[in-house]
Amino acid sequence: MSKKLTSRAEDYSKWYNELVVKADLAENSAVRGCMVIKPYGYAIWEKMQAELDKMFKETGHQNAYFPLFVPKSLFEAEEKNAEGFAKECAIVTHYRLQNDPDKPGKLRVDPEAKLEEELIVRPTSEAIIWNTFRGWVQSYRDLPLLINQWANVVRWEMRTRLFLRTAEFLWQEGHTAHETKQEAITEAELMNNVYATFVEKFMAIPVIQGLKTESERFAGADETYCIEALMQDGKALQAGTSHFLGQNFAKAFDVKFANKEGKQDYVWATSWGVSTRLMGALIMTHSDDHGLVLPPSLAPNQVVIVPIYKSEEDLNAITEVANGILSDLRGKNITVKYDNRTTRRPGAKFAQHELQGVPLRIAIGTRDLANGTVEIARRDTLTKEVVAIDGLNDKIEGLLAEIQESLFNKALDFRNGHITEVDTFDEFKTVLETKTGFISAHWDGTNETEDKIKELTKATIRCIPLEGEVKEGVCVYTGNPSKRRVLFAKAY
Amino acid sequence: MSKKLTSRAEDYSKWYNELVVKADLAENSAVRGCMVIKPYGYAIWEKMQAELDKMFKETGHQNAYFPLFVPKSLFEAEEKNAEGFAKECAIVTHYRLQNDPDKPGKLRVDPEAKLEEELIVRPTSEAIIWNTFRGWVQSYRDLPLLINQWANVVRWEMRTRLFLRTAEFLWQEGHTAHETKQEAITEAELMNNVYATFVEKFMAIPVIQGLKTESERFAGADETYCIEALMQDGKALQAGTSHFLGQNFAKAFDVKFANKEGKQDYVWATSWGVSTRLMGALIMTHSDDHGLVLPPSLAPNQVVIVPIYKSEEDLNAITEVANGILSDLRGKNITVKYDNRTTRRPGAKFAQHELQGVPLRIAIGTRDLANGTVEIARRDTLTKEVVAIDGLNDKIEGLLAEIQESLFNKALDFRNGHITEVDTFDEFKTVLETKTGFISAHWDGTNETEDKIKELTKATIRCIPLEGEVKEGVCVYTGNPSKRRVLFAKAY
Repeated sequence: MSKKLTSRAEDYSKWYNELVVKADLAENSAVRGCMVIKPYGYAIWEKMQAELDKMFKETGHQNAYFPLFVPKSLFEAEEKNAEGFAKECAIVTHYRLQNDPDKPGKLRVDPEAKLEEELIVRPTSEAIIWNTFRGWVQSYRDLPLLINQWANVVRWEMRTRLFLRTAEFLWQEGHTAHETKQEAITEAELMNNVYATFVEKFMAIPVIQGLKTESERFAGADETYCIEALMQDGKALQAGTSHFLGQNFAKAFDVKFANKEGKQDYVWATSWGVSTRLMGALIMTHSDDHGLVLPPSLAPNQVVIVPIYKSEEDLNAITEVANGILSDLRGKNITVKYDNRTTRRPGAKFAQHELQGVPLRIAIGTRDLANGTVEIARRDTLTKEVVAIDGLNDKIEGLLAEIQESLFNKALDFRNGHITEVDTFDEFKTVLETKTGFISAHWDGTNETEDKIKELTKATIRCIPLEGEVKEGVCVYTGNPSKRRVLFAKAY
Repeated sequence: MSKKLTSRAEDYSKWYNELVVKADLAENSAVRGCMVIKPYGYAIWEKMQAELDKMFKETGHQNAYFPLFVPKSLFEAEEKNAEGFAKECAIVTHYRLQNDPDKPGKLRVDPEAKLEEELIVRPTSEAIIWNTFRGWVQSYRDLPLLINQWANVVRWEMRTRLFLRTAEFLWQEGHTAHETKQEAITEAELMNNVYATFVEKFMAIPVIQGLKTESERFAGADETYCIEALMQDGKALQAGTSHFLGQNFAKAFDVKFANKEGKQDYVWATSWGVSTRLMGALIMTHSDDHGLVLPPSLAPNQVVIVPIYKSEEDLNAITEVANGILSDLRGKNITVKYDNRTTRRPGAKFAQHELQGVPLRIAIGTRDLANGTVEIARRDTLTKEVVAIDGLNDKIEGLLAEIQESLFNKALDFRNGHITEVDTFDEFKTVLETKTGFISAHWDGTNETEDKIKELTKATIRCIPLEGEVKEGVCVYTGNPSKRRVLFAKAY
């Protein structure tokens, strides 16, 4: 914690990696591409989980748990899905170790303990869940099934980065089954909306809702809805996706139901997920060269109180005042910590709380005791003010709400200032080189053009926005007719 | 749900398996030995998690998350631990599938994508966590580390049973590091106490706290504390364990710290865990031939209200009354569901709620409307009474508390009635054949005698109790001196 953080201007990527580790959010582990989520980082994730879980339950979903492993024969049943994930599957082939006859004290895989059928560590759970749903659905009375699972999944990614892309990550995956196509589409849209609301309201990150192009869709989906956010370096980040799966999985796993007319039909499906990747979005949207900046809604400690004292007598007097403040704030459901560690000096505590993004810091010194005041430092603006203890409660409550709103507005201004409409491919390339951010451009709707633009610029179509004006035009690359502008960007 | 449950007297094991499936708690999956935890079962587990998590945090622990995989070289570092789990490890050897050249449309493991080092799917996380702790501890100022993880683990068990023994299960595992031996022992004892409190208070299951014998200890532990419960069939169930790990893992992973005198020393460790196995204990302790019986503290719905009506007009009138009750009960933090499904008749609803163990059922019919009454049915005693709506709130609250207490007392009476002191090996065998339960007997303290008794009777030493009178005697099998009685039983 002693060495200063690399600045964003100097090396954005290095800044991010350093910040994640120094703020005690996560670190790399001995397992390639797998991270350790440290207590402080996990406390933020827990807050995110709690809010999301509440929103899922309020929209009628129930949690359940399905196996970590998917037998290969089930995994390959939905061909597009299997093809999409085949290249990044961790595979269990054996179930026992034995003493290595050649190396005393070492173990080796017991060659006799080979599984009859390999097990895939779930990269996503459609296959195992749809194989289960077959037993749960007989008639329309059993529908809809509205299931969510909190779980770990594994995708053997070649290039990994803490939170943003890891071989193992934590997520939630919703899996639902419906009577009609329209119901399933409505569900997929609803959950994309839930994600947008969560990310904007709690994470203070503005998002654009849209549809993915065919080539960017989830493997096995008929339509993928997404929320896209913009990071401070001008790169986009897909923050959540919600898929309308049509009857693809129902057909692959033979999940039929008797409809109201008594006829057998395949059910309609959705799946949707957000992951610990959101932690990366949270960090990159708000943080600065001093460290993490957290929206109060998700901060493990919204307020920290640091006593500044020379004698034990002073400390006792300060502690008495601090206890009053603590109990007042807790009464308002504000999470507050009294940092009275004797192993650290106030300066070191200030530095730590700044680095870890505690929204408000209250310092209480002996002079404050005499004056009936405290010093409040605001993490997002790095400003300080001396205020009276009298009325502190409301002051703090107001400030927390103000910070939450201000972080969102700042991110919104930045995002809106980084959507550039272009009409020529030269402009397109210039924006990518100079300003970055989202590029709003016409596209002819073909995979070929999308691929070509990606190949030439590394920019991909982040989404076909669901809102905003829809106007026809001509493709920025081919000059062919285009129905509407789409959003391109370089992305995480 | 139409077919009656097998009775406990008829076939206890079959009764259990049927109940788990019919009450919608869990089912077997397509993966050998792995279960699907269904929404109703998962809702109970979530309640257990919430209470435990609160207790862990109140005792100063923080949650974190560590990788699912353990590289083989780390896994084998602590030899006893490795030896203990080697025979039940799922092992990842490859990281990619490819199209099978011999079978169009099928996938196979890509032989080129072999991992340099095999990865063990964690059966428990000491190895990966202690390898991480090395980087977290430099000085005594960094201690204690009080970490907990909620996770899935895999143990390739040959004989599995829903909840009780599954290849994959959900659990929490606490891992702590301390300055001194005594501190670590105190922690291990504290957490065993936390488990006992949780299981008795929330699950309404009486437990005996004790120590495991050397041969029953956790692999890698110097001492294992446990809580042991007794099921209705007279078999014991280990409900939770807390281990004092000495410096074994610190030495295996070289985790040293500078102590207050500035000298380097290995840290002292504990680990402790409870799992979805507790669901099995919950089911088997209280349930009866009619289905599940749940303690109100853990019931997803503590109360269910069923309207009994002929006309829609009646239903509307009943719903109005029901809504008042719902809002009153919710105001008291009682979870209550209004079962107004039109797809099921009242009889079918009664049967379902009985099978699923809802503690209290309120039926409201048209006659009740006229009389200002409702009918309350109590699941544990299967008794019914008609009571006035006036004052219903307090009545329900009182009944829920009474049920919670009554379930515990009933289980306690049963348990206490099934601890038999024996002084000869003949008595020992007779009790096992006739009465079962715990057998309190003298044992000479040797592994040999313990093994021999196990071989002859299938009974194992469940624990050396931490409480109760300690009197010397002679071993029930060898006649050699014994320091105190221990508890034997056949066990799950």
